[in-house]
Amino acid sequence: MARIVLKFGGTSVADIDRIKNVARHVKREVDAGHDVAVVVSAMSGKTNELVGWCRAASPIHDAREYDAVVASGEQVTAGLLAITLQAMGVNARSWQGWQIAIKTDGAHGAARIQEIDAAEIVRRFADNQVAVIAGFQGIAPDNRIATLGRGGSDTSAVAVAAAIKADRCDIYTDVDGVYTTDPRIEPKARRMSRISFEEMLEMASLGAKVLQVRSVELAMVHKVRMFVRSSFEDPDAPGMGDFDNPPGTLICDEDEIVEQQVVTGIAYARDEAQISLRRVEDQPGVAAAIFGPLAEAGVNVDMIVQNISESGATTDMTFTVPAGDLQKATAVLETAKSAMRYEAIQSEQGLTKVSVIGVGMRSHTGVAATAFKALASRGINIRAITTSEIKISILIDGEYTELAVRALHSVYGLDKP
Amino acid sequence: MARIVLKFGGTSVADIDRIKNVARHVKREVDAGHDVAVVVSAMSGKTNELVGWCRAASPIHDAREYDAVVASGEQVTAGLLAITLQAMGVNARSWQGWQIAIKTDGAHGAARIQEIDAAEIVRRFADNQVAVIAGFQGIAPDNRIATLGRGGSDTSAVAVAAAIKADRCDIYTDVDGVYTTDPRIEPKARRMSRISFEEMLEMASLGAKVLQVRSVELAMVHKVRMFVRSSFEDPDAPGMGDFDNPPGTLICDEDEIVEQQVVTGIAYARDEAQISLRRVEDQPGVAAAIFGPLAEAGVNVDMIVQNISESGATTDMTFTVPAGDLQKATAVLETAKSAMRYEAIQSEQGLTKVSVIGVGMRSHTGVAATAFKALASRGINIRAITTSEIKISILIDGEYTELAVRALHSVYGLDKP
Repeated sequence: MARIVLKFGGTSVADIDRIKNVARHVKREVDAGHDVAVVVSAMSGKTNELVGWCRAASPIHDAREYDAVVASGEQVTAGLLAITLQAMGVNARSWQGWQIAIKTDGAHGAARIQEIDAAEIVRRFADNQVAVIAGFQGIAPDNRIATLGRGGSDTSAVAVAAAIKADRCDIYTDVDGVYTTDPRIEPKARRMSRISFEEMLEMASLGAKVLQVRSVELAMVHKVRMFVRSSFEDPDAPGMGDFDNPPGTLICDEDEIVEQQVVTGIAYARDEAQISLRRVEDQPGVAAAIFGPLAEAGVNVDMIVQNISESGATTDMTFTVPAGDLQKATAVLETAKSAMRYEAIQSEQGLTKVSVIGVGMRSHTGVAATAFKALASRGINIRAITTSEIKISILIDGEYTELAVRALHSVYGLDKP
Repeated sequence: MARIVLKFGGTSVADIDRIKNVARHVKREVDAGHDVAVVVSAMSGKTNELVGWCRAASPIHDAREYDAVVASGEQVTAGLLAITLQAMGVNARSWQGWQIAIKTDGAHGAARIQEIDAAEIVRRFADNQVAVIAGFQGIAPDNRIATLGRGGSDTSAVAVAAAIKADRCDIYTDVDGVYTTDPRIEPKARRMSRISFEEMLEMASLGAKVLQVRSVELAMVHKVRMFVRSSFEDPDAPGMGDFDNPPGTLICDEDEIVEQQVVTGIAYARDEAQISLRRVEDQPGVAAAIFGPLAEAGVNVDMIVQNISESGATTDMTFTVPAGDLQKATAVLETAKSAMRYEAIQSEQGLTKVSVIGVGMRSHTGVAATAFKALASRGINIRAITTSEIKISILIDGEYTELAVRALHSVYGLDKP
């Protein structure tokens, strides 16, 4: 007997039939004797509809009112799932954020969870009662509903798992696990059985949209084992209820992964834009002069490369931003041209960042060289490189995305069973 | 300067454009210097959608979960109206039932308001803050959301008005007042400027669907002056902001109505069914034996007529029920036939109850006779009659409905200005 949190996203609860399917997943775990808490998102499309109404009412709106409106989506799903579970003979009740209470800070619209009083929920486990919890929301110090920002239900689930000291937090989604790379690009991509928090963080933030980055960070801090699995498989298919080895991907501490791969996955992010500032005066403080105003404007600067020019008196500064931020970034740079002391701006869109990820890199050399060779042999030009302890990111032209992903996936042997 | 509650129903807040129109009504009252609380329903169609989901999840469902789901509709509208008001420069915030708190009893799904702590709302009137309150809901002793039953937002508005000691509770709806009868049947129907609580109760419960009966009862008990007016008129049209004499119908204490009419209105209710039990043994307790089981089954018995049969040993018992209850009523009666001691059941559907209403009847005689004569002269057969102090109800064949309404409207001079 274990204690688990099950989290279901919007597509998994999109209509009553799917909610009934979700209830079967829950019932399976209850019947196995586990203590079960469920965290649900709003029906898919619902949050967008509510957000759209807020914007239509006023483009600029009070985040506290936005929260009251938008949090209603999860409230509805939680109630409907509780009703469905009861109809299947499962003792269940819904909980809204303010009822538990899930206490957040006062940053309405993008609040952070500060404390969860899970005592009552845990007490009711003794009566085999399932707690069905509205995700994405809590209550702020002003006694008003606060939402955690888009995708916050994953974060709710991990926070609840930490609060009730769950053995695992199962994230049910529309894919059946985390793959070595995107299977739509590389059909030979394999589902990983385990991946470390650190690697998942890199995978998540680099474009593998399975999990919210925040939830993985939180799980890492509180050592909550997360498990990514599909809500669309038959809940009663063989193996689905195997607690120790269900189908999916476990995200866990590095220590739990016995045989560590050097490289565990290839991620990519399209729609990157590159900005180059030509002939920037090469003197102390110039980077701060450039990136300070961009940060203030909320532009998300990623890869930064600085080359010394031939003369030595000026330098070229190149960096990437999401394509959606390009216009804003260019405006900021042009406004501050005199302070930044550059001669010209060049920019380019339609780029892709491919990344090679693996905690094993820490103890292995030559990983980067292997990547560069693989890309070079296919005639793919490298525009920029950044590295961290456990990843290598390479900026390339977008049209080479699929080719590069497949080449890297193959060169590290990820397509072998 | 006055203190008023404005209540807007579902059709008045059906979309963002209509919510903006509602906000203009609110702003007009704020600009006039009044303290304003607003009570809103869910967008029209929303509650039906939510109820439909609950039923699809399970035909029989936990009323506490139903409440959590269904109350979300008003929560959304309250937030959206607050956003809209803020965008127009009006200081406003939304309040959910549990935040105020509007305390109810534990009868989830059909709760009754027990107490409203309006101190904070009143305090904020000093800052010209408008309280936008989610109607139809409160919080039960179990700390869970409770709804007041369908149409409960009118009741919420009156209860809030009583709690904040409002000078008036304006019910904005899709009609512009209470008419002497249904204008779709009698184009000469006139809007009343005033009607007493008692008369309105009869009008409301007899099929004039302008207001919820419960809200009028509550208003009568707490002496809350209600005002029925249209939300679809231009909020800034001449006279709309005239506090003492706006367009619409005031529902108030009898004492406020200086020149009382003998008859103030004609109401009707279609879809009545009549049940006759033939040759019931005429002995003490027979009525209890018949109507006890019907009440237990939740059948709403209305007009009851008992005739002595010729022999004197048996009697015929005739009564009406809403057509929707006919099947259930018949089943109850057949099951209990031996205890009830009747010989045969007859039933008929498609009947209409027309009613003549007026507090002036108390002091005038001959009102009923005038009605009977008017119907007789048009060949309309009277199937049953019931009377109270301020109304006469007459059961007729449904096909005569319009003719009867027009005849009665005319015979009491209601079509004269």
